[in-house]
Amino acid sequence: MFALTLAEALTLDERDDLAAFRQAFVIDDPELIYLDGNSLGRLPRATAALLSDMVTRQWGQRLIRSWNEGWFTLSQRIGGKLARLVGAQPDEVILADSTSVNLYKLTAAALQARPGRRKIVSDDLNFPSDLYIFQGALNHTGWLQIVPSPDGIHGPPTAALADALNENAALLSLSHTAFKSGYTYDMAAITEIAHAAGALTLWDLSHSVGAVPIDLNGSGVDLAVGCTYKYLNGGPGAPAFLYVRRDLQEQLRQPISGWFGQRNQFALGLHYEAGAGITRFLTGTPPLLSLAAVEPGVDLLVDAGISRLRAKSIQQTEYLIALWQAWLQPLGFSLNSPRDAAQRGSHVSLGHPEAARIDRALIEQMNVLPDFRRPDNLRLGIASLYTSFQDIYTAMTRLHHVVAEQLYEQYSPEMPDVT
Amino acid sequence: MFALTLAEALTLDERDDLAAFRQAFVIDDPELIYLDGNSLGRLPRATAALLSDMVTRQWGQRLIRSWNEGWFTLSQRIGGKLARLVGAQPDEVILADSTSVNLYKLTAAALQARPGRRKIVSDDLNFPSDLYIFQGALNHTGWLQIVPSPDGIHGPPTAALADALNENAALLSLSHTAFKSGYTYDMAAITEIAHAAGALTLWDLSHSVGAVPIDLNGSGVDLAVGCTYKYLNGGPGAPAFLYVRRDLQEQLRQPISGWFGQRNQFALGLHYEAGAGITRFLTGTPPLLSLAAVEPGVDLLVDAGISRLRAKSIQQTEYLIALWQAWLQPLGFSLNSPRDAAQRGSHVSLGHPEAARIDRALIEQMNVLPDFRRPDNLRLGIASLYTSFQDIYTAMTRLHHVVAEQLYEQYSPEMPDVT
Repeated sequence: MFALTLAEALTLDERDDLAAFRQAFVIDDPELIYLDGNSLGRLPRATAALLSDMVTRQWGQRLIRSWNEGWFTLSQRIGGKLARLVGAQPDEVILADSTSVNLYKLTAAALQARPGRRKIVSDDLNFPSDLYIFQGALNHTGWLQIVPSPDGIHGPPTAALADALNENAALLSLSHTAFKSGYTYDMAAITEIAHAAGALTLWDLSHSVGAVPIDLNGSGVDLAVGCTYKYLNGGPGAPAFLYVRRDLQEQLRQPISGWFGQRNQFALGLHYEAGAGITRFLTGTPPLLSLAAVEPGVDLLVDAGISRLRAKSIQQTEYLIALWQAWLQPLGFSLNSPRDAAQRGSHVSLGHPEAARIDRALIEQMNVLPDFRRPDNLRLGIASLYTSFQDIYTAMTRLHHVVAEQLYEQYSPEMPDVT
Repeated sequence: MFALTLAEALTLDERDDLAAFRQAFVIDDPELIYLDGNSLGRLPRATAALLSDMVTRQWGQRLIRSWNEGWFTLSQRIGGKLARLVGAQPDEVILADSTSVNLYKLTAAALQARPGRRKIVSDDLNFPSDLYIFQGALNHTGWLQIVPSPDGIHGPPTAALADALNENAALLSLSHTAFKSGYTYDMAAITEIAHAAGALTLWDLSHSVGAVPIDLNGSGVDLAVGCTYKYLNGGPGAPAFLYVRRDLQEQLRQPISGWFGQRNQFALGLHYEAGAGITRFLTGTPPLLSLAAVEPGVDLLVDAGISRLRAKSIQQTEYLIALWQAWLQPLGFSLNSPRDAAQRGSHVSLGHPEAARIDRALIEQMNVLPDFRRPDNLRLGIASLYTSFQDIYTAMTRLHHVVAEQLYEQYSPEMPDVT
């Protein structure tokens, strides 16, 4: 049980053995409470220095020579480090493109690997861009079955997924942690059901990587993609990553076959031959400045260790939920995330009919940055590398103040929202 | 006629009305002669300042708020400026992904728009990644016809292209300026032939944009893609651009349908509806640091004006060819680029059996950075915004020295090469 006092929050911070990691980030406005690190992670101090070197020395001075001085292998090198965060081997993960483009490549490869099967199974908690990509990759040659969540918060019953996974199912693809409610699947159990049906699995790790323990190898996962600009703190729109289980790499053919995926890139032959291993899932020249920026954030997470981070994250989301229960539930807020920590990622959604306007008031009057997700979700992301208990305590007092005093009434409910 | 003296080079630089643009770039080693701006353009001074602001203020301080403070519209805004360099309307050009990914999107869209036609026509001067992408997009449902160049330098005879463009041709796709020889097509004439056959056209402008005048609208071009990190100086691996003629935009469907191409991105509906106009050709979140870096280089080119740049570029490639003829042809170098300036872009390839080793000697002993392209091409890129006549003169004296004194003999002919 929590006492829900400021003194308690400060004590929890004092006892936090990850507290020192906050100093690794640029936090120059101590009054700003940032609860959107699950959407755009903060700037690591090391990244600012690295980017200065990338621009001034590596691009400005070394020019084209930098390709041979590290740029060519950067996607693989950072992917190899990131593999430690997702329970994969270094040669099973690589950075490339955006999450959506990677999802397209792997979806198309999976469909081609299961000829005769024409269905993709997903759920309605999945990130919409993922569903759009499936629709595009299917291109009317098959269909997408979206298994519904019972309540918009929890994933569909396992039996409903198992029903959908029939002899027509080529692929099961789900978000490991749902973008809105934070619901988190039992990856190993669901993967096993898909495999029993003869389907491949493709997990989107965007909202879990860097916050939730992931064991792709141990769960027998075939394919995965994920984002690096959320809990990994890789910078706005930073290149995504993809994972292909080693024994599948040489069997699969991805359709966006460009020169970075070619066996011998600079032989410049006229006919495509897929490169060795994970490199065949690359396509074009990566955006180097954005790519390089991914590394310091990954280093910090590897250093902190996912199990320690997860322990702190659970403690922090429990703490936030306790504050909700004491202060906000009486004001009409619902908990739109799983109550069971084992089913929850590191963000918590609170529902309120005026969530859109409350979001504006928090941003514009209260110096709190949460996220709004339609129709009525205030999404509070906890990035345990730098979010403190005091941050959570203060944000919740400000949120309570906004609602109790109806400070949101000046705003229109129709507001532009952000990613 | 050129006198081919240092004094002449200095005089040509004095008379150059674009000479001041050199000051807009970071050039802190005056002894280094950079002839690879056609592969990785130099760093504009303004870009270094912009990136510092992107990292420290826009990411570090403004955090997620930056999306609403310019990031969401950046791909379109820079595309709108870039449109002026390619003879297009601002709402016909957008920045996205890599050149290869964009090529895939537009190739797939073109194939779908020409049902019943199953052939893509290209040539063997095209950049290999383009050919790989066609092969991937066709995925055994059609075929690629590669019309051969007669000599590896010039494009195929018009009649050969016209022959290939029969009733099976869905798409003609060529590099406007060839990556190796610099051969540059008559875009309007070739587009007309393709249209007469009922095929769509997709031009790759990577090696011409920012160096050669391009009039996509005036040439009736349907589709185009291009690179921003060469003559546009957008930085290593900077996001590419794509062009879709306005009246085609609503007719075409590109397959990598992600949330940035969705009609109402933050409604987060479960079914994809293509966005308005050019935005439907977007897919995922763009790499913002690399994206933002594109703008200063585009601004410089718009400011200089393509016709002035082209006039200087022709004078400079003519000058380089005169030096070749006087100094290098006697040493066994061939001219592997068109002699006719009207058929030539802004880079010149010189052939020599020892080109790979000569390239290493220039880089390691002579402080000259050219490009090597297999099997025997030394590719010398002239970026007229910052390449001076003195640069060319000096590089050619050093190249002459390397070959006359056989300074390349210590190098193995098998060397890693760079993009």
